[in-house]
Amino acid sequence: MFPQRPQRRLNAQAAAEFATTFGDCFSTNAAVREQHGTDESPYPVCMPDAVVFAQCTEDVVRAVRLCQRWNVPLVPFGVGSSMEGHILPIEGGVTLDLSRMNRIVAVNAEDFTVTVQPGVRRQQLNEEIRHTGLFFPIDPGADASIGGMASTRASGTNAVRYGTMRENVVSLKVVTADGDVVRTSSRARKSSAGYDLTRLFVGSEGTLGIIVEVTVRVYPLPEALSAAVCNFSSLQDAVTSVIEIMQAGVPVARVEFMDDRAVRAVNRYSQMSLRETPLLLFEFHGSPSAVAEHAQLAQEITRGNGGMDFEWAEQPEERTRLWTARHKGYFAGLQMRPGARSVSTDVCVPISRLADCVAETVSDLEAMPFPFKVVGHVGDGNFHVQMLLDANSQSEWDQSEAVNRRLVLRAIQMDGTCTGEHGVGIHKMEFLKEEHGEEALTLMRKIKHALDPGNIFNPGKIVSWD
Amino acid sequence: MFPQRPQRRLNAQAAAEFATTFGDCFSTNAAVREQHGTDESPYPVCMPDAVVFAQCTEDVVRAVRLCQRWNVPLVPFGVGSSMEGHILPIEGGVTLDLSRMNRIVAVNAEDFTVTVQPGVRRQQLNEEIRHTGLFFPIDPGADASIGGMASTRASGTNAVRYGTMRENVVSLKVVTADGDVVRTSSRARKSSAGYDLTRLFVGSEGTLGIIVEVTVRVYPLPEALSAAVCNFSSLQDAVTSVIEIMQAGVPVARVEFMDDRAVRAVNRYSQMSLRETPLLLFEFHGSPSAVAEHAQLAQEITRGNGGMDFEWAEQPEERTRLWTARHKGYFAGLQMRPGARSVSTDVCVPISRLADCVAETVSDLEAMPFPFKVVGHVGDGNFHVQMLLDANSQSEWDQSEAVNRRLVLRAIQMDGTCTGEHGVGIHKMEFLKEEHGEEALTLMRKIKHALDPGNIFNPGKIVSWD
Repeated sequence: MFPQRPQRRLNAQAAAEFATTFGDCFSTNAAVREQHGTDESPYPVCMPDAVVFAQCTEDVVRAVRLCQRWNVPLVPFGVGSSMEGHILPIEGGVTLDLSRMNRIVAVNAEDFTVTVQPGVRRQQLNEEIRHTGLFFPIDPGADASIGGMASTRASGTNAVRYGTMRENVVSLKVVTADGDVVRTSSRARKSSAGYDLTRLFVGSEGTLGIIVEVTVRVYPLPEALSAAVCNFSSLQDAVTSVIEIMQAGVPVARVEFMDDRAVRAVNRYSQMSLRETPLLLFEFHGSPSAVAEHAQLAQEITRGNGGMDFEWAEQPEERTRLWTARHKGYFAGLQMRPGARSVSTDVCVPISRLADCVAETVSDLEAMPFPFKVVGHVGDGNFHVQMLLDANSQSEWDQSEAVNRRLVLRAIQMDGTCTGEHGVGIHKMEFLKEEHGEEALTLMRKIKHALDPGNIFNPGKIVSWD
Repeated sequence: MFPQRPQRRLNAQAAAEFATTFGDCFSTNAAVREQHGTDESPYPVCMPDAVVFAQCTEDVVRAVRLCQRWNVPLVPFGVGSSMEGHILPIEGGVTLDLSRMNRIVAVNAEDFTVTVQPGVRRQQLNEEIRHTGLFFPIDPGADASIGGMASTRASGTNAVRYGTMRENVVSLKVVTADGDVVRTSSRARKSSAGYDLTRLFVGSEGTLGIIVEVTVRVYPLPEALSAAVCNFSSLQDAVTSVIEIMQAGVPVARVEFMDDRAVRAVNRYSQMSLRETPLLLFEFHGSPSAVAEHAQLAQEITRGNGGMDFEWAEQPEERTRLWTARHKGYFAGLQMRPGARSVSTDVCVPISRLADCVAETVSDLEAMPFPFKVVGHVGDGNFHVQMLLDANSQSEWDQSEAVNRRLVLRAIQMDGTCTGEHGVGIHKMEFLKEEHGEEALTLMRKIKHALDPGNIFNPGKIVSWD
C-alpha cells in the first residue's frame, strides 16, 4: 500500500535505554503501538516500534537525543486525525505522543494571543478561553491538536475570513535535531527580523523538528452571528455565487459547499431535513447591522444565480446543529457505504477555476462504481472528495487512485495545489514534483538536509531524502 | 561606520566577462555605482564594483552564474529606499538593479491576484490596476519596488487591516544559487503542499536568492472610505484608545500615531494646520453603513480616553492631502534639522506593552541633545523613531546608537521584535541574537549555508556566515 522503505528499527539495547529514561511513559505494548500506527488515511496500520508519551519539553529533548544516538526515526503524534498518512512510521522507529502536553500556557487577551502546549485540542482551547470573549477560529472539522494543526498548516471552514494556521500561528517553540529548544519568533504582530522560521515549521509535518509550544492569534467573539442555507439546482450556480460574493468584497465568515450526495448523507447521519440539492452554507460575523447587510448582499447575489431563498438558522441551537452536521460530514460519508474504506482527498485552485474543477471532477467520479460526495471550503477555492471503496477490491482502489491523480493534475494545471489543507503525508508526495518542479523540491530537500542531517524527524514524508 | 568585512572584488577579467555578457546593461561608472551604494540608512556610501541592469529573468540567471564563477557577491537593488543598509555591498561585488524589470505580468481580477516583475513600484501597481476596481494595500510610505517590499517583509499603514507582505505575497519566482528558476507556490489561496518556500524568501533581504516575479493579493476598492484625525493631550491616552479599539474588534483600516513633534514637522513641511498634540489618524473602509458604524465606535472609545472630537476628512482631496502629509513624515523630519544625518529605527511590541514602550522611549530621547519625532502603525504595536543628528558629531552618533540599543532591548524585553517592518540589513544584525537566541540563529545560518553555499547573495546581511 505504501512504498517499501528502509527500516531503522529500535533494537533491544536502545529500547532498554528509552525504558530507563521514560519509565511508564515508554510503551512497546501492541495495542498502544497499533493506535499510534493508525490515522484517518486509507492506509493500513503501520506500527511504530515503541511509543513515548512526552510530558514536557525536556522529555522531547531527551527523545530527540536518544533517537539521534540510536539512529532511529521519531514521529510526532497528536490525535491521529491526519488524512494522508502523516503519522505512519513507515521507516520504523519511535512515535512521540504529545497529547499529554495539553496545558494552556498563557492567555494574553489584550494582545489577542494564546500560548498552548502542542497536545491542546482546538475545542479545549475554545472552551478554556471562552470567558475572555475571544475565540480561536481555525476549524478543520476534526478536534485536532493545535500542534498537529500547525504541522499540517490546517484550515477549515473559517479560513475564508480568518486565514489558516499559516496566518494564525504567531510563534512556535521547537526542539531541533541538535536537541536545542528554539523559539521561532516573538509575540509581536509583525516582524522583519530575519528568516521566517515560524512559517518554515508550520506545514512541515514533523519533518524538521518537534513543536513543543504554539502561540496562536485569537479574535473577539463576533457581536452578532447568523447562518443560512441556500439551495441551488446546479453546482455551477452555487460556485458562481461564491465567486461573485467574494468579488463583491462581502466578508463572509464561512461559505461551505455541499453537493446533493453530501446533503443526503448528512441528512441521514444527523437526522437533518436539508433540501437535497447542491447547497451553500453561510455564516456571517460582525455587528448586527453588518451581519444583516452582508447577508442581504449575499442573498441578492445567490438569487441572481438561481439560488433559492435563504433558510436562516438564527438561534444558536439551530446554528450549532447545522455546523455540527457539516463537521460530521466525514462520518456521514462513511455511512454511505458501511464497512467501506474511505479515501478523502482535497485540492485548492484559484477561485476563477473552481466551478470547472469541481464539475470535471464530479463528471469523472460519476463514471466510477463507488459512491462519493463533494464538499468544499469554496470561498478559498478548496474542495474535498470522499470516495467509499469496497475494502477488499483492488480494482476500486486502483480506480480511486486514478481519479485522485486526475483530480490533482487537473488542479495543478489550473494553477492550484495538490492539497489545500490535508497536507502531503505519504499520499500526496508523488505530486509535489508536478506542482512545484524538481528545482523547488531540491530547495526543500536542502532545507531538510540542513535542519535534520540524520533524517530522524518523520522520515519519508513530504520530500524524499534523495 | 559598518564593520570591516572581507572583500571579494570584481577583477578585471571578471569585469570583462560581465561586460561581454551584458553590454550596455553593465556599468562601472562611478556615478552609477554611487547611486547603487546609497540607501535611506544612516550609513555612508558603499559602492559596488559594478552594476548590472537586469532586463529579464535570463539576465538574472546569467548574473548569478557569473558571480558564482568568479566568487563575487551579488546584491539585488530595487529603488534604494531601504532604511538599515540592506543594499550596501559591504563585501564588494556586483549590484543587480532590477528596476527595469517593471512590467505587470498578469492581472487575475477574479482571483484577487496580480503578478508583477520585481521592479514594479507600488504606486505604479495601483495605477495600473485601478480600472479593475482592485487595489494593493501594502504601503510602507516610500514608493518602493514590490521585489524590495517582499525582500524586507514590508508593511506600513494598512497592515492592521490587510496584513503585511508576509500575508500578501501569494507566490514568488526566484533564481537560486544554482541558477535555477523556482516558483515557490501556485496561485491557490492556501496550500499544505510542502515547506513554505514563499514565506522563507519573503523577508530574506536578498540573502537566499533573487526574486524575479511576485504574485500578490489585491482587494476590492472599498465602497466607502473615511478618514479622521483625533487629538489627545497625552501619548498614553492615544495609545490606550488604540488598544481598546482593537479589543472591541473594530476593523480599522489604518490607525497611525504621531507625537506632537511629528505633527509640528508635518505642518511645516506640508503646510498643514493639524493641532500640535499627540494624535491618531484613522481610516475606515467598508460599506457606507459599516464605515459609519466603525467610526462611531472608534469615536466613543477615544472620547472615553480624553480624545477630542474627530476632525473628518470626507472629501477624497482632503484625505489624500492628509495621507500624503503622513507619508512625507520622513522628509518632514529631515527638515527639523536641515543638513542633519537622519537615523530611523522601528520596533514592534505586543500591543499591551505599546504605551509603556513608547513612553519610556520618549523619556529616554528627551534627554538627548538632538531633535527627534515618533510615529507609529500603532494598531500593530509598531512605532518608528527618527533622530536628526549633527552629521559631524561622533558623540551624537554614539548617543543615538545607545538610544537605539536601549529601545531595541526594551522592545525585546517586552516580547517584541527589533524591527517591525524596516528589516535587519546591517544595523539590526547585532540584535537578532538577543531577540531569537543563538540556537535560532544557528537554524537561520544552516538555511543560508544550504541555499547559498558560496555566500554569493547579499553577504554580511541578516545573519553572519559563521
